[in-house]
Amino acid sequence: MSTPTWHYENFDPTGSAIGYRIVRKLDEVQSPFQRIEIFESTDWGNLMLIDGAMMLTARDNFLYHEMMSHPALFTHPDPKRVVIIGGGDCGTLREVLKHEGVASATQCDIDEQVTRMAEKWFPELCESNGDPRAELLFDDGVAYMKHCPAGSVDVVIVDSTDPVGPAEGLFNRAFYESCFRALKDDGILVQQSESPLMLLDLIKAMRAEMAKAGFAEFQTLPFPQPCYPTGWWSCTLARKAGGFAFREADARAKAFETRYYSADVHKGAQVLPPFVADALAG
Amino acid sequence: MSTPTWHYENFDPTGSAIGYRIVRKLDEVQSPFQRIEIFESTDWGNLMLIDGAMMLTARDNFLYHEMMSHPALFTHPDPKRVVIIGGGDCGTLREVLKHEGVASATQCDIDEQVTRMAEKWFPELCESNGDPRAELLFDDGVAYMKHCPAGSVDVVIVDSTDPVGPAEGLFNRAFYESCFRALKDDGILVQQSESPLMLLDLIKAMRAEMAKAGFAEFQTLPFPQPCYPTGWWSCTLARKAGGFAFREADARAKAFETRYYSADVHKGAQVLPPFVADALAG
Repeated sequence: MSTPTWHYENFDPTGSAIGYRIVRKLDEVQSPFQRIEIFESTDWGNLMLIDGAMMLTARDNFLYHEMMSHPALFTHPDPKRVVIIGGGDCGTLREVLKHEGVASATQCDIDEQVTRMAEKWFPELCESNGDPRAELLFDDGVAYMKHCPAGSVDVVIVDSTDPVGPAEGLFNRAFYESCFRALKDDGILVQQSESPLMLLDLIKAMRAEMAKAGFAEFQTLPFPQPCYPTGWWSCTLARKAGGFAFREADARAKAFETRYYSADVHKGAQVLPPFVADALAG
Repeated sequence: MSTPTWHYENFDPTGSAIGYRIVRKLDEVQSPFQRIEIFESTDWGNLMLIDGAMMLTARDNFLYHEMMSHPALFTHPDPKRVVIIGGGDCGTLREVLKHEGVASATQCDIDEQVTRMAEKWFPELCESNGDPRAELLFDDGVAYMKHCPAGSVDVVIVDSTDPVGPAEGLFNRAFYESCFRALKDDGILVQQSESPLMLLDLIKAMRAEMAKAGFAEFQTLPFPQPCYPTGWWSCTLARKAGGFAFREADARAKAFETRYYSADVHKGAQVLPPFVADALAG
């Protein structure tokens, strides 16, 4: 048994850091795109770091995965065809496939090694990878969306790392235009949108780029996410047209378990604290 | 100009750490009770640490102070007499005094040096200290509540450090019995109740001790608080009798500004995510 040590990640944009008490390094691989490391922690289960940045912990990833999937899927009137860009740990895919109405879900992550490491060290996140509705691609998400047939997708989920490195191309107008084109008229795009406490300018910039691509309406939903900077995170939904219509009755009657998400939590997340609402309105 | 360095705080009970990029140490004092340090940070303004534990940052303390005061005060039918145990930085006192109906608010912190340091380095939190309704005492909060006239208080706010060290006596049945006795029949006790992600056992234990002291009903409200372990925190309200009745119309019509709190945020916080609700029910 190793003596636990502390591993810290410093976030320059927020001037803050998050750390974990580590038992040992379990695995590491340098893929063509990035360095992936797996640690065993004393209190958070296994951890995955990519290029030194915390991606997920066994203990708290349910917050993120549930909020990246269920609000969008319960807002779309009838999501059948879902595309996940990024999401290589397969946790978002698992949540999406809990919706019985989903006929097919494609996960397109550029880095196969993320999925291989998830299969090995986070098998619970990969338990739906064998679902006949699931397709796992290891390819460039920007190119995938660009070549997606127009009007073929109900929900696009952008489950990526931060807008630096391999994910940089997932936060600009050109990518959002591909998403807009690929979505049906009532389609919804949802993307992780960083910390509503410290990175409001980034959320505003994202929404502005989405608007340039044609998206008509936005909803930013905050949620706790201890392993990301400031511990408070968000996703942003964008709709091609019309108003967001939360299928509240369906969310209440859902046939699957969730640990953080519920119809009431969804409604609560739609209410932005005044300082966030003011910043996004300004 | 010093070169910034990183200061980390390791939380043993959660196996996680939070850190800040520090410009310099501004001040420090060893009081009879604890060591108080003030740092200047690059992104969070001034920081106050007590015995090495982060107490507050200039940037995010509004989350905590608003949630420690407004939900309780807008749940009590007509709060006139408020007692704050701890709260030496005066931020909770400032929020309480925003309620025009409050006739008197006593803050009783054992350590005068906390308030002196707040006056010097967080003057914005102390801007209501000269309010004629405010009384600042530097005394033992346990003794203060024990000797409070029975049935004389509308709301008791326990704004303390964690249940170790000077604040240990603020988390047990004897203290809660004093609070119960001091409160009027429709009185409310509210206490900071740690992380709903990692420290649910502590919240359950607190509620159990409060129940032994006679409190009839509880409400735990989660909120983001980046500078505390896991970045997700909570307060717990306890009521002597009857049901909690949120004065929603009054909260909507409030005559003062808040940055996080709103009537809708209050309602949203009343909805516990399933995993928290299940744990507290169990």
